[in-house]
Amino acid sequence: MKHRGLSEKELISDLRERFKPSDDSVLMGIGDDAAVFRPGTLPLVATKDMLIEGVHFLLDHPPHLLARKSLGVNLSDLAAMGARPRYALFGLGMPVDTEGDWIERFFRGLSEVASEYDVTLLGGDITEAPSLTISLTLLGQGKEIVLRSGARPGDAIFVSGVLGEAAYGLALSKQGVMWGASAGTDRFLKAYLDPIPPVDLGCRLAAHKVASAMIDISDGLSVDLGHICEESGVGAEVEAAVLPISPELCQASPAAEDMALHGGEDYQLLFTISPEVLENLTRIPLGHKITRIGSITEGEGVELLCPDGSRKPLVPMGYQHFQKDRVQV
Amino acid sequence: MKHRGLSEKELISDLRERFKPSDDSVLMGIGDDAAVFRPGTLPLVATKDMLIEGVHFLLDHPPHLLARKSLGVNLSDLAAMGARPRYALFGLGMPVDTEGDWIERFFRGLSEVASEYDVTLLGGDITEAPSLTISLTLLGQGKEIVLRSGARPGDAIFVSGVLGEAAYGLALSKQGVMWGASAGTDRFLKAYLDPIPPVDLGCRLAAHKVASAMIDISDGLSVDLGHICEESGVGAEVEAAVLPISPELCQASPAAEDMALHGGEDYQLLFTISPEVLENLTRIPLGHKITRIGSITEGEGVELLCPDGSRKPLVPMGYQHFQKDRVQV
Repeated sequence: MKHRGLSEKELISDLRERFKPSDDSVLMGIGDDAAVFRPGTLPLVATKDMLIEGVHFLLDHPPHLLARKSLGVNLSDLAAMGARPRYALFGLGMPVDTEGDWIERFFRGLSEVASEYDVTLLGGDITEAPSLTISLTLLGQGKEIVLRSGARPGDAIFVSGVLGEAAYGLALSKQGVMWGASAGTDRFLKAYLDPIPPVDLGCRLAAHKVASAMIDISDGLSVDLGHICEESGVGAEVEAAVLPISPELCQASPAAEDMALHGGEDYQLLFTISPEVLENLTRIPLGHKITRIGSITEGEGVELLCPDGSRKPLVPMGYQHFQKDRVQV
Repeated sequence: MKHRGLSEKELISDLRERFKPSDDSVLMGIGDDAAVFRPGTLPLVATKDMLIEGVHFLLDHPPHLLARKSLGVNLSDLAAMGARPRYALFGLGMPVDTEGDWIERFFRGLSEVASEYDVTLLGGDITEAPSLTISLTLLGQGKEIVLRSGARPGDAIFVSGVLGEAAYGLALSKQGVMWGASAGTDRFLKAYLDPIPPVDLGCRLAAHKVASAMIDISDGLSVDLGHICEESGVGAEVEAAVLPISPELCQASPAAEDMALHGGEDYQLLFTISPEVLENLTRIPLGHKITRIGSITEGEGVELLCPDGSRKPLVPMGYQHFQKDRVQV
């Protein structure tokens, strides 16, 4: 496939050089029919996500951020298992008239984020496609793995970071607000365009056996807490007044609470902690802001406790944006 | 994502049931943020291929064959390393109006081919896309791995099976010839639509240390032999008269030799054998037709020895079809 200013041969040779494995466990990276590696004996954890132009991102998404985000959504999945990321394979489909500069910036971003998270790019596939299509497969490892199914009645429910910022960033992006326009809007655009999944927190929550169940918030708190409840066979109650919403978001949008409850793509961790572990939580170094937002209950479904003391069902409802059509299996 | 007659929830629950892992090494398959597995201590081999509508296949490609082929091209990559396939992750992007029946037939095909090759589907991602997009990641294992770089001057060059049939099948398909039209054309359509990669042969060639270098013929003999030569720092000569071309192809097309030399997608194995191993080859049970087609030489480039005794350079040239734009890195 020939792209403007970059031949196929040059592209492969560039990628081979750029992603030369520095990890001793990799016996063969890019350059053969397949990659060869020896990950050691810990259990492996694997996830795969596709990002498609017009469905998951808009064409003006800066290429290096798109690359970061395409690995980021997978990093978030591994974080939610408590696994440390190690190896990735990429698929990139692009229109024939894609500029060499776009490709260069995409792979620079991928290389940068891979190196930040100590991920080795093992190889992949580059092909022509009618619209930009990115498919990332990420492999990680962890000694203690946390599933969605371990929540028990009485467990406390926590989230990391703050919620709703990515949803507001998406709204701004759709209104045509560009990154760099102002520090006030950049905060939200960054949350949407370049989320930072709390990989280290996920690993610590697993390694110290803190989390009884865990998931990442990709589809929105209401949907993802619903998944934990369903897999664990439990219900949950969430206290609206304690949701971690930044003063900046509260000020920026009257829909802040809705965005925190239903907005997707925050890529924060949602996890449960048993009462016994909760007692000793302060002794465990987590190094990350976490907030208790509710409790696991008997029964099923999620209830929202409102500040006026009333209760209402928290219906799983992805924020109404184009990402709603994504299904992770 | 809602498809005609199949809700998201039904689809995930169906896939979870359909791909329930029977392999003890899988601790968690579909149904969490990521899959968890313990492959054991042998080196892992990983490959990833994307198939995109209009680029790699036409919309009338029967869905179950498309599923088979999407795993098949990856099986072929692992075969070329001498690795046994074990785990796969899939990505499927499809237009919102995709019929439930298409999805059902696609996953039936995927399930069928996975079970034939003893591959466990670990999970994946299903999403909306403007055109059908399939991305498969395949992981395998092997004790002895064969790279492209091991060919030495004096080694004999072999191919498995027969060549050129898929290229002719593609030509028929583009002319609108349908599978089932006649036994005569079905042979070629099958080679194109439902290739059977010689996985077992690849594993035996590796396990018995027969092959010094190996690659699968996906882009055409001239291109793929070029890769072996380049990676091994050697040249090669191929004897036109001994190319394994079936009498059926010779009779069907006057371009049979060109298809055998340059036609892609045969998914046969191209490998080299040292003189010492060649002496004892008859004692090794390979269970598959293989044909010696030439020798590795000093220097660089590939020459074709013509039946009239003349020699000409065999220029790497993918068969002129739409698959030419595919780059595997």
